[in-house]
This record gives sequence, C-alpha cells and structure tokens, in this order.
Amino acid sequence: RILRFLSIFYSDILQPGWMRRSLGELKIGTYENIATATYETPIIKALNTFVERRVSALPVVDKDGKVIDIYAKFDVINLAAEKSYNNLEVSIADALKHRKTPHSPNNKHVYTCMPSESLTTIIERVVKAEVHRLIVVDDDEKCVGVVSLSDILDYLVLRPTGIGK
Amino acid sequence: RILRFLSIFYSDILQPGWMRRSLGELKIGTYENIATATYETPIIKALNTFVERRVSALPVVDKDGKVIDIYAKFDVINLAAEKSYNNLEVSIADALKHRKTPHSPNNKHVYTCMPSESLTTIIERVVKAEVHRLIVVDDDEKCVGVVSLSDILDYLVLRPTGIGK
Ligand SMILES: Nc1ncnc2c1ncn2[C@@H]1O[C@H](COP(=O)(O)O)[C@@H](O)[C@H]1O
Ligand SMILES: Nc1ncnc2c1ncn2[C@@H]1O[C@H](COP(=O)(O)O)[C@@H](O)[C@H]1O
Repeated sequence: RILRFLSIFYSDILQPGWMRRSLGELKIGTYENIATATYETPIIKALNTFVERRVSALPVVDKDGKVIDIYAKFDVINLAAEKSYNNLEVSIADALKHRKTPHSPNNKHVYTCMPSESLTTIIERVVKAEVHRLIVVDDDEKCVGVVSLSDILDYLVLRPTGIGK
Repeated sequence: RILRFLSIFYSDILQPGWMRRSLGELKIGTYENIATATYETPIIKALNTFVERRVSALPVVDKDGKVIDIYAKFDVINLAAEKSYNNLEVSIADALKHRKTPHSPNNKHVYTCMPSESLTTIIERVVKAEVHRLIVVDDDEKCVGVVSLSDILDYLVLRPTGIGK
C-alpha cells in the first residue's frame, strides 16, 4: 500500500498522471463544429470565418475530408503585407503558393495529432513545431478536432479546481 | 479633376488610403483595461489571466509602467514541456531565463509600436517579427495598448461594411 502510494507520488512529481493520459480521455480541444476550408476557398471567406468564429486557423481538407494543410490568421497578414488586399477572391491555394517547403513529419504544411496520443506528446509537438495548435485527425487522416494552446492552458488552469472544461 | 480622381484611384490600388493612416486614427487595437504583468508576477497568476481574459499575451512592465518584455501563452507551454508545471509559483523573470538573446530593434524581447505609426508600418513589422501582436507605447515607452492579428483582421473585414469596430 505504502509502496503503491509512493510510486504514485513520485511519478506525479516527475510527470503527473494526467500528462500521460490521452487527448481523447482528457477531452482537451474542440471536437464539434470545426470550421474548415478547402484549397478552393476564397481568402475573403476564410477571413470572415476568422472574424465570425473567433478561431485563429482553419484546417484545409480535401474532397474526402482529409487534412492536407492549414490556413491561419498569420497567412492573411502576409497577404496584406504583400499588398494583395485588393484581390481577396483569390483561393487559399494561390495565396499559399509562395510558402517555403514544409518540414512537418507528414511533409505537409500542417501538424496533426491523434486522440490516442498523450498530453505530453501533444505539448512536445506544439513546442517543437512552434505552432499555436494541432489538428486532430482519425486513422484516415480525416479532421476530427483542433487542440490549441488555449485549450491546453484552460486544462492546466481548470484541472486542479475540478471544474474541467 | 480627372487627374485628381486618377491619382486617388491609383494610390488606392497600390495602397489604399486607410493603409497609410495611423493606428490612432483608425482606432485599431485595444486601449483600455490592458492586462499586464511584471517580472515578479508568478506564472500561475499569468496563466489565470490568460484563461480569464482570453488574451494571448501580457506586456511585462517595470515599476514606471515602461514595457520591458512580453509573456505569451506559448511561453507557458514551453514551461510545461520542460515539466516545470509543479512550480507555478516561479516568477516570469525566472521562467524566461533560458530564452535566447533578442533580435528586436529595441534589443528587448518585445516588439512595440506607436499610435502615430501607419497601418502599413504595423503590418510590415508584425510580418517581419513573426509575432502575433505589437504592444502600443507612448513617447515614454509606457504601455498604452495592444494591437493583435485579430484586431487587424477585424478591421480589414469590417471596414468595407462601414460597421467599424
Ligand atoms: N477551425 C476551428 N474550428 C473550430 N474550433 C476551433 C478552430 N480552431 C480553433 N478552435 C477552437 O477555438 C478555441 C480558440 O482557438 P485559438 O484561437 O486557436 O486558440 C479553442 O478552443 C480551439 O480548440
Ligand atoms: N494583454 C492584453 N490586455 C488587454 N487586451 C488584450 C491583451 N492582449 C490582447 N488583447 C486584445 O484582446 C483581443 C484578442 O487578442 P489576441 O488573442 O492576442 O488576438 C484583441 O482585441 C487584443 O487587442
């Protein structure tokens, strides 16, 4: 009994149990009503979604719903800096043409994760990739959710109080 | 008359008039009730502010209210990745100790702007610095506001409709 207590106690200091639990178990992130876009979506529509939904990025999906890219608020600002704000009918695909080659593991411009992965893994990926959020995908690479910095911090803060999300 | 029309027309295509107007004139950003921190603020307090106020960063000010640094959501995640989540009483100064040397113009870890600067200048600075927001300061470097990507996009979207902010 005491041993068991000690082992829980120690692993809690080194790495709390909840850090090893999966995203799906902890229910961190948004899994309903995900705002997405396709490569054909005009920038003006993406912009309106950013403003209306107060989200900071849209997963770009193909016709089968597979996650192939991401379009973020920051990409719009790049457009504004290039003084292209007079042609907001341009598609996401065209707007993103000038990006450098990706260095994400899946060789796409988007970092993803699965509901089965642990919070530790998620945090490490976010930090390494220096991104604001990961797109949660299922086994078929289909978009099922978004887990952003805000979601993780909400969990870290609200967890101890037991309020949850 | 025609010449004048043409010149307005052309400069509008090259760079719309509102892009050359100042932040102060356009009233882009937040200028009231700015959530700030000091180097002595414990991380746990910053975290609570992020969650309660739904802001993504806190200007760090000195005892005179001068902006000396910034503490962002991403910095908390770095802390979590270093598995330091058991000591959230640590100060912002200590938590930020391991950062690399800054390359901002003011040689601090924070990018600022003035209300008199044009939207063009602001957008260029945001893109170049690859930051999510600039801290708005007065002539004495005191914090007077925050202009974030969200504020700029809100303006770009709502401007044509005349709704304003
Ligand atoms: N494209 C999206 N669709 C739906 N919810 C999202 C999307 N992106 C982010 N969220 C959620 O919106 C909240 C704020 O996200 P963010 O602005 O990225 O920190 C978080 O709870 C995210 O999970
Ligand atoms: N520290 C802050 N205090 C008050 N408002 C802020 C702060 N940081 C950002 N804002 C505002 O909050 C909104 C969302 O900011 P952000 O999450 O940084 O895109 C924008 O209108 C910002 O101007």
